[in-house]
Amino acid sequence: MIMRTLIISLLSIGAIAAPATALAANEPIQPIEAAKPKNADMVELGKMLFFDPRLSKSGFISCNSCHNLSMGGTDNLPTSIGHKWHEGPISAPTVLNSSMNLAQFWDGRAKDLKEQAGGPIANPGEMGFTHELAVDVLRSIPEYRTRFKQLFRSDKIDIGMVTDAIAAFEETLVTPDSRFDKWLKGDKKALNQAELEGYKLFKESGCTGCHNGAAVGGGSFQKFGVHEPYKTTSKAEGRFAVTGKDADRFMFKVPTLRNVELTYPYFHDGAAATLEEAVDTMGRLQLGRTFSKEENAKIVAFLKTLTGKQPEFKLPILPPSTNETPRPKPFG
Amino acid sequence: MIMRTLIISLLSIGAIAAPATALAANEPIQPIEAAKPKNADMVELGKMLFFDPRLSKSGFISCNSCHNLSMGGTDNLPTSIGHKWHEGPISAPTVLNSSMNLAQFWDGRAKDLKEQAGGPIANPGEMGFTHELAVDVLRSIPEYRTRFKQLFRSDKIDIGMVTDAIAAFEETLVTPDSRFDKWLKGDKKALNQAELEGYKLFKESGCTGCHNGAAVGGGSFQKFGVHEPYKTTSKAEGRFAVTGKDADRFMFKVPTLRNVELTYPYFHDGAAATLEEAVDTMGRLQLGRTFSKEENAKIVAFLKTLTGKQPEFKLPILPPSTNETPRPKPFG
Ligand code: HEC
Ligand code: HEC
Ligand code: HEC
Ligand code: HEC
Ligand SMILES: [Ca+2]
Ligand SMILES: [Ca+2]
Repeated sequence: MIMRTLIISLLSIGAIAAPATALAANEPIQPIEAAKPKNADMVELGKMLFFDPRLSKSGFISCNSCHNLSMGGTDNLPTSIGHKWHEGPISAPTVLNSSMNLAQFWDGRAKDLKEQAGGPIANPGEMGFTHELAVDVLRSIPEYRTRFKQLFRSDKIDIGMVTDAIAAFEETLVTPDSRFDKWLKGDKKALNQAELEGYKLFKESGCTGCHNGAAVGGGSFQKFGVHEPYKTTSKAEGRFAVTGKDADRFMFKVPTLRNVELTYPYFHDGAAATLEEAVDTMGRLQLGRTFSKEENAKIVAFLKTLTGKQPEFKLPILPPSTNETPRPKPFG
Repeated sequence: MIMRTLIISLLSIGAIAAPATALAANEPIQPIEAAKPKNADMVELGKMLFFDPRLSKSGFISCNSCHNLSMGGTDNLPTSIGHKWHEGPISAPTVLNSSMNLAQFWDGRAKDLKEQAGGPIANPGEMGFTHELAVDVLRSIPEYRTRFKQLFRSDKIDIGMVTDAIAAFEETLVTPDSRFDKWLKGDKKALNQAELEGYKLFKESGCTGCHNGAAVGGGSFQKFGVHEPYKTTSKAEGRFAVTGKDADRFMFKVPTLRNVELTYPYFHDGAAATLEEAVDTMGRLQLGRTFSKEENAKIVAFLKTLTGKQPEFKLPILPPSTNETPRPKPFG
């Protein structure tokens, strides 16, 4: 009896698993896998750094200020607020699933998360600090010294260790188990009729030409404004800023559409307030196609099924500064 | 046999409990009790609101921006950064254990946490918003509507409900189990010799005249500058702003010294960078006594034993805005 139950269980696991894999393999979008952190202590240190406002000149701004993990990993602003309320030149992308990007930033100027993470600390319009001062702050705090020493077996702390740890934390910021992924894995009831029709439209009209893979984007640079030019007051020129090639003018990294329900407003200038507006613009500019109100609503309904399980963790408790810690300069 | 073990267990509980209670009762400081939240759903909603930057005009500043629960419930700045990088007039106190205060704010102008919580939202130099707009934001978000309805059995949301929920969350922000509380409860090994001598000095020189009770402060308004005047460029006049009585000039609420290791810099103007400096000033100005370097160090060592268990909870995941949600105006 026990044996029979076991065999049936094994069979039924197989029965679910087989079509799931088959299904996903035929689709242009693959499910997101849960993070498998290699080094839990490194992830914990990276999380602390991600939340630590002492990596900024003011002592007020942390990575989480602009990539708020309560809010889909972004600030939900057209352009970001930085040091001294500086208005940034471009909209902040989510850090969720950013490990799947072919490169970091809208223009791909950082090759990976580690290279990216040094940027904002020293950017005068973001955290407004220097790498040296940020590292001085960490060095002055015994708990940070201990943690870095345990992980890097060195008595000194350098910015490379800081960005290693932040990147390790960011790699855990994936969002599996969206309703769409459940559907991909074989749960036919996970999507309703409108959502399924939206997905069909998304595939058949050509969106998946650019938005594909597990991240539903993030895999290539593409021109924004294929059929008609995109009108914007933003000065960003995309990939051209990196390569200097005329052909790269207005080529932007295709953003992930995972959790796009949470990452309003849309586009590199944050000009589209709603998902309806973004889908309409994409249809017209990228595909030369004007969606009806019903079609647009179905695509939007599908896109909302891409909201996955948000990373869950305890708010980190940060070790206090000491008398040796350089003090923040918010108004200096 | 079972009965005997039970009796011995009961006896040994008694044997520990009796001297602990006796000890604490003879001391001017009492241990902090763990929070016993009456309504877990109310606390959860309050936590979400505490972390929601959409209660500010910019969409960037939440209660947690200035009362960072990763950092002892404060911003560790001499004066706070508010909307448009406005420099506040006074230093932000911790929200930890603030439910034990006789009144809220340095000058006690809010009678309790509920009355306090409406202040920052509508303060132009803090969150820069209005109560009406903040409530409009919440009303436009289905998950908030559902949660408010469940808790208040009403289809409308008003600012009174918002401040009720925030206050319920703040009431949970207590920090029991500090080493000093363990000592108070009878664990003689919880403090070392220097810390014990520091506590003795703290009591015998008269600090406990003002810093007493479970919060080691928070129980009265006292003149800052008893033996000599306090020199500051700050314009704050303390309790006088509330009562208009000359005798209340420069009377401030005695701050809690719980977690004082984490709540640097010190005083209402944030002018004392270190605990050593704050203790020295207190000795001279409040008691007319100059502590030796050794005495100062012992008092500081004692004060650091007041760091309790920080509130632990998951970072709240906030529900997304909808097309109906009023958009933030960070630069408008
Ligand atoms: C003041 C706001 C602000 C702060 C603080 C900030 N970021 Fe960003 N972040 C942005 C903006 C804006 C961009 C887009 C810049 C661009 O593409 O040119 C960005 C881009 C990124 C990206 C690339 C995502 C992608 O899809 O290309 C990552 C990853 C990232 N930030 C992580 C971090 C980390 C880690 C920190 C802290 C060390 C941080 N950010 C601090 C605003 C901020
Ligand atoms: C030719 C490539 C291409 C095609 C086809 C395409 N997109 Fe895009 N998509 C992009 C690029 C590039 C961006 C980023 C534009 C920018 O802001 O610079 C983008 C941005 C978006 C955004 C905003 C994401 C954000 O976080 O800002 C949405 C939503 C979107 N696309 C949906 C669609 C839909 C729906 C379709 C099909 C109707 C589609 N896209 C077709 C390349 C494409
Ligand atoms: C821009 C910074 C800032 C923001 C945002 C902010 N506060 Fe404060 N908070 C302060 C400052 C500064 C004071 C002291 C003001 C005074 O005493 O006059 C204070 C005082 C308090 C106090 C009184 C504590 C005591 O011991 O007297 C509480 C409680 C409190 N805030 C809770 C909140 C809540 C809840 C929110 C969000 C709704 C919030 N604060 C938003 C800076 C801020
Ligand atoms: C007569 C009343 C009184 C006495 C006695 C007193 N204090 Fe205070 N203490 C205060 C008041 C009032 C403040 C707030 C001053 C301000 O910033 O306006 C304060 C502030 C402090 C602070 C800074 C807390 C913070 O978070 O900013 C420390 C530390 C402190 N006291 C320690 C001591 C020590 C140690 C002693 C004994 C040597 C002592 N106090 C004696 C009334 C008193
Ligand atoms: Ca966005
Ligand atoms: Ca302080």
